[in-house]
This record gives sequence, C-alpha cells and structure tokens, in this order.
Amino acid sequence: MKLAVVGGGSTYTPELIDGFARLRDTLPIAELVLIDPATERLELIGALARRIFAKQGHPGRVTTTADLDAGVEGADAVLIQLRIGGQAARLQDETWPLECGCVGQETTGAGGLAKALRTVPVVLDIAERVRRASPDAWIIDFTNPVGIVTRALLRAGHKAVGLCNVAIGFQRKFAALLDLTPSDIHLDHVGLNHLTWELGVRKGGPDGEDLLPGLLAEHGAAVAEDLRLPRALLDRLGVVPSYYLRYFYAHDAVVRELGGKPSRAAEVAAMEKELLGLYADPSLDEKPELLAKRGGAFYSEAAVDLAAALLGDGGPGPASVQVVNALNNGTLPFLPDDAVIEVQARVDRSGPVPLAVPRLEPLYAGLVAHVTAYEDLALDAAVRGGRERVFKALLAHPLVGQFDLAQGLTDRLLAHNKEHLAWA
Amino acid sequence: MKLAVVGGGSTYTPELIDGFARLRDTLPIAELVLIDPATERLELIGALARRIFAKQGHPGRVTTTADLDAGVEGADAVLIQLRIGGQAARLQDETWPLECGCVGQETTGAGGLAKALRTVPVVLDIAERVRRASPDAWIIDFTNPVGIVTRALLRAGHKAVGLCNVAIGFQRKFAALLDLTPSDIHLDHVGLNHLTWELGVRKGGPDGEDLLPGLLAEHGAAVAEDLRLPRALLDRLGVVPSYYLRYFYAHDAVVRELGGKPSRAAEVAAMEKELLGLYADPSLDEKPELLAKRGGAFYSEAAVDLAAALLGDGGPGPASVQVVNALNNGTLPFLPDDAVIEVQARVDRSGPVPLAVPRLEPLYAGLVAHVTAYEDLALDAAVRGGRERVFKALLAHPLVGQFDLAQGLTDRLLAHNKEHLAWA
Amino acid sequence: MKLAVVGGGSTYTPELIDGFARLRDTLPIAELVLIDPATERLELIGALARRIFAKQGHPGRVTTTADLDAGVEGADAVLIQLRIGGQAARLQDETWPLECGCVGQETTGAGGLAKALRTVPVVLDIAERVRRASPDAWIIDFTNPVGIVTRALLRAGHKAVGLCNVAIGFQRKFAALLDLTPSDIHLDHVGLNHLTWELGVRKGGPDGEDLLPGLLAEHGAAVAEDLRLPRALLDRLGVVPSYYLRYFYAHDAVVRELGGKPSRAAEVAAMEKELLGLYADPSLDEKPELLAKRGGAFYSEAAVDLAAALLGDGGPGPASVQVVNALNNGTLPFLPDDAVIEVQARVDRSGPVPLAVPRLEPLYAGLVAHVTAYEDLALDAAVRGGRERVFKALLAHPLVGQFDLAQGLTDRLLAHNKEHLAWA
Amino acid sequence: MKLAVVGGGSTYTPELIDGFARLRDTLPIAELVLIDPATERLELIGALARRIFAKQGHPGRVTTTADLDAGVEGADAVLIQLRIGGQAARLQDETWPLECGCVGQETTGAGGLAKALRTVPVVLDIAERVRRASPDAWIIDFTNPVGIVTRALLRAGHKAVGLCNVAIGFQRKFAALLDLTPSDIHLDHVGLNHLTWELGVRKGGPDGEDLLPGLLAEHGAAVAEDLRLPRALLDRLGVVPSYYLRYFYAHDAVVRELGGKPSRAAEVAAMEKELLGLYADPSLDEKPELLAKRGGAFYSEAAVDLAAALLGDGGPGPASVQVVNALNNGTLPFLPDDAVIEVQARVDRSGPVPLAVPRLEPLYAGLVAHVTAYEDLALDAAVRGGRERVFKALLAHPLVGQFDLAQGLTDRLLAHNKEHLAWA
Repeated sequence: MKLAVVGGGSTYTPELIDGFARLRDTLPIAELVLIDPATERLELIGALARRIFAKQGHPGRVTTTADLDAGVEGADAVLIQLRIGGQAARLQDETWPLECGCVGQETTGAGGLAKALRTVPVVLDIAERVRRASPDAWIIDFTNPVGIVTRALLRAGHKAVGLCNVAIGFQRKFAALLDLTPSDIHLDHVGLNHLTWELGVRKGGPDGEDLLPGLLAEHGAAVAEDLRLPRALLDRLGVVPSYYLRYFYAHDAVVRELGGKPSRAAEVAAMEKELLGLYADPSLDEKPELLAKRGGAFYSEAAVDLAAALLGDGGPGPASVQVVNALNNGTLPFLPDDAVIEVQARVDRSGPVPLAVPRLEPLYAGLVAHVTAYEDLALDAAVRGGRERVFKALLAHPLVGQFDLAQGLTDRLLAHNKEHLAWA
Repeated sequence: MKLAVVGGGSTYTPELIDGFARLRDTLPIAELVLIDPATERLELIGALARRIFAKQGHPGRVTTTADLDAGVEGADAVLIQLRIGGQAARLQDETWPLECGCVGQETTGAGGLAKALRTVPVVLDIAERVRRASPDAWIIDFTNPVGIVTRALLRAGHKAVGLCNVAIGFQRKFAALLDLTPSDIHLDHVGLNHLTWELGVRKGGPDGEDLLPGLLAEHGAAVAEDLRLPRALLDRLGVVPSYYLRYFYAHDAVVRELGGKPSRAAEVAAMEKELLGLYADPSLDEKPELLAKRGGAFYSEAAVDLAAALLGDGGPGPASVQVVNALNNGTLPFLPDDAVIEVQARVDRSGPVPLAVPRLEPLYAGLVAHVTAYEDLALDAAVRGGRERVFKALLAHPLVGQFDLAQGLTDRLLAHNKEHLAWA
Repeated sequence: MKLAVVGGGSTYTPELIDGFARLRDTLPIAELVLIDPATERLELIGALARRIFAKQGHPGRVTTTADLDAGVEGADAVLIQLRIGGQAARLQDETWPLECGCVGQETTGAGGLAKALRTVPVVLDIAERVRRASPDAWIIDFTNPVGIVTRALLRAGHKAVGLCNVAIGFQRKFAALLDLTPSDIHLDHVGLNHLTWELGVRKGGPDGEDLLPGLLAEHGAAVAEDLRLPRALLDRLGVVPSYYLRYFYAHDAVVRELGGKPSRAAEVAAMEKELLGLYADPSLDEKPELLAKRGGAFYSEAAVDLAAALLGDGGPGPASVQVVNALNNGTLPFLPDDAVIEVQARVDRSGPVPLAVPRLEPLYAGLVAHVTAYEDLALDAAVRGGRERVFKALLAHPLVGQFDLAQGLTDRLLAHNKEHLAWA
Repeated sequence: MKLAVVGGGSTYTPELIDGFARLRDTLPIAELVLIDPATERLELIGALARRIFAKQGHPGRVTTTADLDAGVEGADAVLIQLRIGGQAARLQDETWPLECGCVGQETTGAGGLAKALRTVPVVLDIAERVRRASPDAWIIDFTNPVGIVTRALLRAGHKAVGLCNVAIGFQRKFAALLDLTPSDIHLDHVGLNHLTWELGVRKGGPDGEDLLPGLLAEHGAAVAEDLRLPRALLDRLGVVPSYYLRYFYAHDAVVRELGGKPSRAAEVAAMEKELLGLYADPSLDEKPELLAKRGGAFYSEAAVDLAAALLGDGGPGPASVQVVNALNNGTLPFLPDDAVIEVQARVDRSGPVPLAVPRLEPLYAGLVAHVTAYEDLALDAAVRGGRERVFKALLAHPLVGQFDLAQGLTDRLLAHNKEHLAWA
C-alpha cells in the first residue's frame, strides 16, 4: 500500500507519522511519500519520519519529493493537508475581519471564505493531477475549510472524503470522562464541518443507550470550559456544540476578546520555529511534547482509520463507522443532496455512506441551512472568482448578513489575498 | 354577502371602509359587521363607516357588536386585524430589544416574537369560534406577524389566508414609476411575510417581460430612498428587498439610529388621538388625509381583491392572482410543505394555490430557511408556552443567534408581556 | 444631642440604628427623629429602632414623624438619605440607557444624571427648611449622587458634608486582608464621589508606610474579584480604583453583560418586601442578616464618625480624619476651588478641611477633570431645568460624548422622569 | 532671509512654493532650502519649485540637499513637515485601531499616539541640530500631531511654534460664505490642535461683532456638510467644532463607516504617484489642480504669515494676529501653564503671545482637560519609550478609556511600529 501526503512538510506531519507507526496493524503502509515544494523543511520532516518508523520497527519506506505528479503516481490514497499562504495568510484571516467588527478566524466567517478562495483552486488542481497519475486513488482532504473543499472535489467528480478531528476529539474526551474505551462511544454527530452538534453519546453503537444527559449532568462544567462556552448554554440545549460554534453563540464577545489581546502572530511563529528546531535534532525519534499544543490531536488516528476503511477489505467491523464529510444524499432532508455534511458514515472501499441521523431540530437546522447556502456561494466564488461573488457569499453568511459589513469585508479580503487569487 | 371584521374598532378601519365603498362592484357586501370589545371606540368607527357608505351610495348595512360569536354568525368571510395589547405593547416591542443591542420592531426579531406569543392564542380562539358559528367562512388574517399567525391557523385546520400590503404597495409604486396601470404589473414576489424580495417585475403577467432591470437603472435611487437602504445594495443585488429587510441588511445601523432618537410613543399616541377626534366629527364622511400617514396603504384594495376571489365565482380573471400567505407545498423546494410562504397565488373559492416562482438564489434562500426554522420554534412557543421555548426561538433567530442575547431578550420579553401570556 | 434622619423609612435605616446603638459612646444621641412621608413604613422602622435601642440599652429616644419642619426643629445634625421615585426610578435609571448602548447605573452616566435631576431640587428644599428650623445644624448628605448633591448644597450656602461608604469599605477590607485594625489604615483616597482611586494604603497615618504594593502583590486577586475588574488592571496601574470605575474601565463589557441578564427589578423588590416582613416581627430586636446583602455596609460607622466629629469637641484625635465630600479649595490644583471632591479630611465642629493628597497622575486627573465639568453642567441642569441643559450635560459626560447618544439619552431621560421633574 | 524646509521632498511642497511665490511681498525669501533624504523625489520637487519661482518672477534661490546640518545652517526659519514612515505608516494608523473597535485616524486616538511616538524623537533630533547650526532660527512645526510635537519642542527649550491649517481654512470658508475678505474675519478659535471650536466669528477684530449666530442660521447646512456632522449638532451647540471632533461626536458611526469601506491605501498611493508624474513634466510651472485634493489647503498662506511675523519687524498690524500652537501660560486657566494650546496669538520676533479668549464652557473644557492629560502621557511615552507608558497614554485617552481596548491597542501599536521605535 502506497500513501502520499501532499503538504508533507507541515510541522503537523510528525503527529501523522507517529500514528502510522503506532497503528501499522490497522494500516500496513509499504511506502509513504511526503510531498512538498518546501524542500528544506520537507527533508527535515522526512528524516524525522524515518527515525520514528525505525524506532517503532515499522517496515515501511518513507520518501520525499517536491514533484507532485511523481509522488502520487501509483498511490492508493492521497492525503491533502495544505495551508496556502502559510501562517502569514492565516494571521491575515484572523485580523482584517476585526476591522469590520466581525470575528477573525481561519475557517469560519469572512476569514474562512478567504481560506476557501485561496485553497479550492489549488486542491482541485492537485486532485486533477492525482486522477491522471492514479485514477483509483482515494483523496482524503484534511485541508480547511474541509466542508467547502470536499464539496469542490466531489462536484468535480473526484473520489474524495473530507476528514476533521473534531468528532474524534469529542469521542476521546467523552470516553475519558465516562471511563470507557473510545470504541465504545458512538456519537450522534450532525451538521456541517465546524458547525456540528453532538446530539447523543451512545454506548456501544448507533442504537446504544444515550449517555449524553448523564455526561452533561456530571461533567458539564468540564465540557463547557473546554469549549469556552457558558455551561448554561449546554444545560439549556442539552447537546454539545463544536468548539467552532463559539464564533456563533458568542460572536460579539469573541470579537471583543480578540480586540483586547495581541494577535497570535508572534506566538504561533515562535512555536513553529521551535518545532523545526526540535525536528532537526538527529537524536529525536518520536513526536515531541510541544506538538500537542499545535492542535490537530488525534488527527493521525482518524486518518489511519479512514484510510484503512477506504483501502481495506470492506468488512463491516465497527471500526469502519466513522465521522466524515460526505455527500448528504437525503441524510439531512432539508439540504440538497449534493451538499456535503459531517456525520457518522459507514466507510468501505466504495466510499462513505452516511448513517441515518436523529432529526436535527429547527434550532440547529435553520443555521445549517443558512451556512449551506453560504457554502454554495463560497464555492462558486472560489471556482469562478470575481468581486461580486465574494460579496454575495459574505452577505449570505449568517455572521455577516449586513450590507456595509459585506462591502468592507469584500474589499479587505481582496486586498489581503491578491497574490493568492489568480483572478483578483 | 356578509363580512365580519374582528378588531373593527381599529383606527385603521376607515381605510378599509373606504375601500369597500369604492370597490363595491368587485365585492358586493350586503352586511358588514365591525366587532370589537372596545365599544366606545367601535361606535365612533361604526358611525363613520355608515356615513362613508351613505355618501358613496353603498347599499350595504353596517353593524357593530362586542359579541364575537354573534358577529361572525353567518359570515362569508372574517377579517382579523388585531393588536393585542394595543400601541402600548407595540412600543414595548420596539424598546426592550434595544437594551440588548438588538433591533426593536414589532414584526421582526425579538419584538416580532413577543407579538406572535401574544397574538397566536387569541387568533386561534377567534378562529375556533368562527368555525363553530360559520363553518364555511374564510378567515383572512391581516394580524401580524402574518406568516406565523397564518401558519398557526392552517396547522389548526382553519380555512385561512394571510394578507399583507407590502406586495400591493410595490405594485402601485412600480406602476407609478413605470407609468403603467397596477394591473399590468405582475411581481415575482418571493419569500416569507416581511422577508421577501421582488425578483422580477413583469409586464402583463407571470411570463411577461421583466421590467426590473430597467426600473432599477432609471428609478433605483427613488426605490432605495423609499426602503431606506443604500442604492448600491439594490444595484449589487439586482432585486428589490422588502422594507423589512432593512432590519437584516442594516441591522446595527438601525439599532444605532433607534438609540439616537426618541421612541415613537408620543408621536403615535398623538396621531391615534387626533384620528379619533376627527372620526367623532359627525360631518366627516370620508377617510381623513391624516390616515395615510398611519401606514396600511392599499390594505383595503388587497383585502377586497382577496375576499372577492375567495367568495366569487372562481373565474380565472387576472384579478384572482394575488400575493398571499399560504402553504408552501413544494413551491420553495428547500422548505417544508407546511411552511407558510408569501408569493403570488391563484385564488378562488377553494383557496390560494401558489404559482411557480423563479428559483430563489442561495443568497436569499439561506436566510429564508433560517427564518422559517425560527418561525417553527416561535409557533411552538406561542402555542405551548414556556420560557425555554421562547429562549430557543430567540437563539434560532438570525438576528439574535448569540447565547447571552437570547438570555437577555427572553427575560425581557417575559417581563414585559406577563399580562398577555397566560402561561408566564 | 438631637439627630434627624430624613428618609428614615428606608429599609436601610436599621443598619444605621444598629450603628447608633453600638457606637453610642462615640455619638451620644439623646433624641433620634426618623422623618418620612411614608408613614406606614416609617412606623414599622421606628418600632424596630426602639426595640434595637432597648435591647442594647441605649438611653436615647426614638421618634417618628411625617412632618419635616417639626422633625428637624432643634436638630444638631440632619442626615439625608432619600431615593426620589424609589426603587422604580432606580430601575428605570438602570434600564433605558442600555437602549442607547450606554451603561445603565443609578449614580454613573446617564442614569446618574437622571437621579441628580430628580434629587437636587428636593434636597435643596429640605436643606432650606432645615436652615430655617435649625440654622446651626449640620447636613450630612448620604443621598446619591453624593458629589453633585453636596455641591448643590454648598453652592446654596448650607452647612453640608457629603458621605459615602466606599472608602470605609476599602479600609475595612484592606484591614482584614492585612490583619490590622481599621483605625491603623489611612487611605490615600482621591477623586470625586464614585470616581476615586486608592493611591496608597498607609499604616498609622497620612505619613505612614505605604502598604499598597504589598497588598496588591499578595491579595491582588481578591481585591480584583471584589471590584469585578481584571487583576492585570490593578497590577498595571498599581492603585485600587473604586468599584464604580468598572463602568469606565470595562464599559462595553458591562453593557454587554447587562443586556444578557434579566434586569434586577424583581430581585430587589423581593428583597425589600422580605425585609419589611422581617421588620414587622415584634420579636426582632436586631438588624437581620439579610440586610447585609442590601448594600450600604459600614454606612452607620461612617455616619457616626462623621456626626461625632462635626458635633464633638473638635479634639484632634485620629478618629476625626475621615473621607468626606467637601470643597476642593486647591486640594486638587487642576480643579476649580468650588468643585466637590472626595478625599481624607480633618473634620471638626467647623467642618471638613481636606488633607493634602499625593499628586494625582494625568492618567486619573484627566478623567476627574472631565467628570467635574460634567458635574458642573449636571448641577446646572438640575437647578435650572431644560432639555438643552440635560443634553449638554450628557454630551459632556465621558461615557457618552457622542451626539446621537446624547440625543437618544436626553429623550429617554425626560420621558422616564417626567413626573419627577417640575419643569419637564 | 533664508528659509529651510525639512521634509521638502513631500508632494505637498509645491503648495508651499506656490504660496511663497505669490506672497513674496509679505515674505521676501532670498534662499529657500528644501531638505530631504529622499534625493530623487527631492530633485523633482526642487526643479518644479525653481520653475514656479521663475514663472512668477520670484528672485529667490531654491536649493536642495539631503544634508540636514548643511541645509539649516544660517537659516532664519526652519519649517518641519515630516511623515515618519510615510503613507505606509499612515495607513497602519488608520487600520489597526479598527480591530479593537476604535477609530483609526493618524492624528487622533490610538493612531495619533502611534504617529506621536514615531515622530517626536525625530523632530527633537532635528531641532537639536537646528539649534547647533542656527541658534536664532525659529522652528515652525507643521508635523502632526502638531500639539504634542510643539509641546515636545518647547519643553526641550526650542524656539518653536506649531502651525495647523484648520483655522485658516475656517477663516477662508466663513469669509466666502459671508462675502467678506478673510482679513476681516477674526476667529474665537479655542482648544488644542485638532480639538478646537470656533466660539465666535468676529468682524474686523477680536472685539468685533459676532457673526457666528447669523452664519449658522443662514449657512449651517453647508458648514455641517463640510464637517460631516449633523446640522442639529451645530444648532444645539451654537459653535463650530473642528472637523476632527467628528471622531469624538460621532465616534462609533465613523468606526462603522470605516469598517464598511475599503481602506484608503490604494487611493492615496495612486494620487501620490500621479502627482509625482505631473511634477516630472518639465513644462509644468505651477501647482497642478490635483494638489488641491491632497489636503493642506491654505497651508502656504498660514506658513507665510507666520514666518513673516516671526522674522518681520514686529509691527502691530492685524496680519500678525494668527492662530498658532503655543504655551498656554494661563490663557485657558484650567490647564497647566506649560500645556500647548491652539488659539489666536499676537506673533512678532519674540514669538507668539496668546490673546485672551472667551471662557471655554465646561462642555468643551472637560474634554480639553482630558485630552491634555493624555497628551502629557503621550509625550512622556514618546520621549522615554516603554510599553507601560504607551498603555497608560491609551487608557488615558477619552476615545479609549477601557482596559481591554487599551491592552489590545498597545499590542497592535507596538507590533505595527517596531521599526520606527528605537526602544520597542
């Protein structure tokens, strides 16, 4: 089995490598290709990857290349984990929306649109080259905004699945709080990428007992603190929203908070630099502690599970039920079939098929429908370009919605992303 | 033909009477019953109504009563035009949401929810009594929020149609600007009550030439000024939103503006008082000039047209195509069938059937879906009561959406409406 | 010695009575007259006062009357503790400013102006009657806004001192934290009423060692929590602002917080009702626990100390140095001599003389000068009336400052206070 | 007479040259030295200056140099007109404060502080070198923020006067509206630089008839539109605030407006480029039309008048009464003597002496005192550096005042100005 990782030079990658090494029984990788145009950084990561594999006795071969076409040739699966424009672009996404009184975040709101505009054309181009080089390969997209990017890939006819670590994070967190093993936890995880709610926490499987009421009663405070949302919100709703719903449920407070703090620029840049310094140490043969602070926890577990299911023999074991981003196809009846949703799905060689989900209450469904309409326009703007399409996507976003804000955000988005947008 | 008007003691009523008198050929009323518990005011209005009928030579009889059951007995159609709590309650609706930084308006946002909570149970009770007294009578609801009230009536199985004067106002306005007769104008009017867009202005009928681009090019400034929205918004959208979309597209600016002005209390109270003074003059036999400033223009024309179509011989003349609030039934495919939408419909004795409408772009459909979900919860709260249902409806509203706002608004809504909410 | 308490029917009064009983050696009262037009409530309080005196063996006589002139006849000192309009007016003060996005508080900002407008003319009238009945009596004003009311009294030539419990509260709090007796703590307390900073906490007297740096280092968190201000603010400033500076240093956060919570109406009304219920119990002969939650801690201690110094033999003991509201007379050199400031003063039979204070840094002096200018206009508006004077006072307030806000606040202030403003 | 212009390479300079040419009778310049390190741009401006002098028959010599010491050698007066960091820094000043919900402007609020921090040390260094090269030379500062920079210069003992074109602009505007010659207009212009009010518009001189009431009655609308303030504000105040008071009286509206528009970056850069293109044309021998849009109207008139008065024979003609920035020295009695204020002054060889001004009402005086305190801290931060000094200056500013805002602004100011602040 050959696996290619596009964006393999990311400082995240050792997290992934560590998972591949630990979980080699689940996903027996013969060749792992790390692909990245940033060759210096790539070599650093590649060498560390080899040391991690060696230490853990993983027999697979790790190679590196800046040549995308060569790298994905013959791959069974291709993970895409990019950040077009790097941390610099992310920091822009977090900053200029604040000038208009709107939340600055790289996957939500106006910042998320900027990222989509930068990213979609690049990922579509990569996918096209993957299709030419390895027509049967599965594309696993971990590149944000995962929902819009996956929708772009599927609309263009690619064999693609979108992956996010929010659900697996909740699964592990809840398992720890409930003193259960993660595989005993089935989440009624419903919504769009970064706009999901855990409607139930079931023991044993989709039809198991719902542990959520007890979990909230006993551990509500801990869960709320983690999400940085008021405990009363969880109590009144009786469900657990994703962390990213903070940008909706506490929008103005977050804007105020961001305006009262330094931007995260220095902090993140420093951490990246420190990580690269650690990676360069030839005696390092495991992922360093510091990486845990970088985000992306359990990403490797989720990726291994997903790749194993997509490439495996398709047996109906519990491991093949996973939260992914996939076509709606009637799962959420109020959304178009070709919307991309994030839910539990049965995954095998033929791809993901969403499981039936509990009815999503109007309290959540209304917001989901609104954001889906925005994503439609965002995808349109990303693929076809043009200031008016950007403006309409922003006006359509529930966190924007006002004319002057949409105008101010459009102008700033274009001014700050000129170099990344071919049409601007 | 017998027509009953519940809330007949409203200062609006002379506008309606004037229309009945002028349009008696369209709607030949034999008996008009004005029903209102406020008997003093009702007698004033009733006497004026008789003078107006007399002056115009209308042969119909005008009666007044405080007894609802007697009044609606044998009626062919019952108009409901109520304001539970009167101007005092309206002023509350306009005020307390501002304390939370939210728009204060009696049909939109938190204020609109308060009005729905006060109104729905009363209208449902009236409708039930109409059903007992005159099982075949049509109920025409002009009581705001028309969308939610109509949905409540239809869900309870009543023969009801919702009526609003926004569309007829646009029709008359556009006709004047384009120098056409109103009946030559067919509007592609789509959305929910007070959340509509004119997507096209067609000459002659649903398939006629679209005059909207030319209208915006030539008269865009006048239309924008009327709506108090920036002209650039109309130009960029290429459609004409209803006046009430101001509360969405310019939400924060409106909040700011309302905070910088006196509340309208004194002004409106003064006008009502002056109107009643005029009505008391036994020499007055037409609607006074001042009434035009009271709002509700063309309400009588719309009501006459609708009643005539519902009670007429059902001929397929152009007059029987009208904008009403009716069941969606697939007209907007992204909404449930039992949602109530506001569109052009063919109306005859069997009720309204929406015409096919142009596809509603995601830019509008997302917001419509979001508000429909809110209306679902609002109706639930109105019928079943309870603080948590009110809280959820508010959190579900696109103009609220934040936890602390939903909490603050819930508390204020309940505090200010205690006397009108049986369960509070 | 005869002491009169105008507003003696307040639910606060038992706190005062308790202090008079405990501290009878300091302030030997022969007759205490409680004056209040609300006779029913007054009798309740009066009876309780007699029981408290009796239980503690206080030999003084307690009388009650609704007749102000008779009550103050022959008094040595008159305490004025009023709330014109009662809790209802206070709740208005806390509410309508929020409609304009401004903090709602009864002593600060627009709400504070409303209170000043309602209060100043009443207090001036009372003072005039005191002057006629007992020309030598001292007037001790505990009625908020104490700064403006005291300025009004002094400008009209009355023998008046303004009293607030903020400083004594800090003294007791700091003493507890530092494990010292209160009388060992001298505060460098500087500013205007409700706009003060503790610049130093000196041991033993005005020239003692400054304990503030150590206090902040060791107990900064506790002090910050009490004030509901970020600890970092105290650390960066190195001084302790009064609780009321929260409305300045965290203005928007407080507005947001107030908008997300119910108003305090129900809560306060309930507590008042409960207190009156307790007072009516003929077996109650001490102040009940619940009274501590009502605010006003240490008010009686401060009042006893102040009255004792004003009426005493003028000896220069440490007890006669107290924080009061008195004429500036050059103490803060950047303010007019006739401004009223709140600082430590030496108090004897001839009244208070401010002690020299440390230089107030520009960081605080700028704000103090700005608020003093507002107080000047507020007093002018209170004495002379008129919409334009109210508007100008609001525009001059550092928490308002914007034209549209000043307009919106003016309209609301007048609408909500019509019955209390003779000229409106 | 030798005049040196530091920052002579500015695109503004031709406006100044044009004035020198036109007004050569008032200010007979023998040598004009344009000094600028940007030599290419300087040569362009210098050549144009020579062509303008030649065309108008001005006998003076124009030289250019990048060598400050040589350039100011022997100068009678030195004009300083700098923009440290150029348009790029200005654009930063206009942008990052918006992230915290604060107005972004290069002379007011947080942006103005940034400019002060960048500018003061540079100007003090230049002044020191002027003092060494030409101990008797007058320094005329046109560099913003003029108030703080002039205060820095005077505190360091320099012979300096601060100059701004706001007052002369009003004089010319009012003269045109009133159909008078400018010299007939004496303004009661009072306050701090960019924080002034015209309290009176007198005909003929300081004691002339006040034309302001009539001016407002007849031309209030035009004046208000110019200032972009509501006419009602002017009517209610009865005075004319400077344009920069918009950032106070309409702060939130301006923030909202700025957030809804593109930043001015592209626009200004384009204009500068176009101007330089025009200047390079060897046939151009007058200031181009476009320059009028660049701002700075009547700057040359004001500069010529001021230089002429400072260098002239000191005759007491009316021309020597001008609005300048100079030491308060008791003119505004509520400010320290060493504050720098902007008022009418009698100017002769010994410098400016403020005329007596009408009493500044508390409505304005409170704000002036508050901003003066800020300027004190701003100057301290500019001269001594340090994050805490910056933080305190921001917290002291009436447009900031809140802890979290001051924190967020401090961090952003430092992050965006690192390269210009030696100590950061």
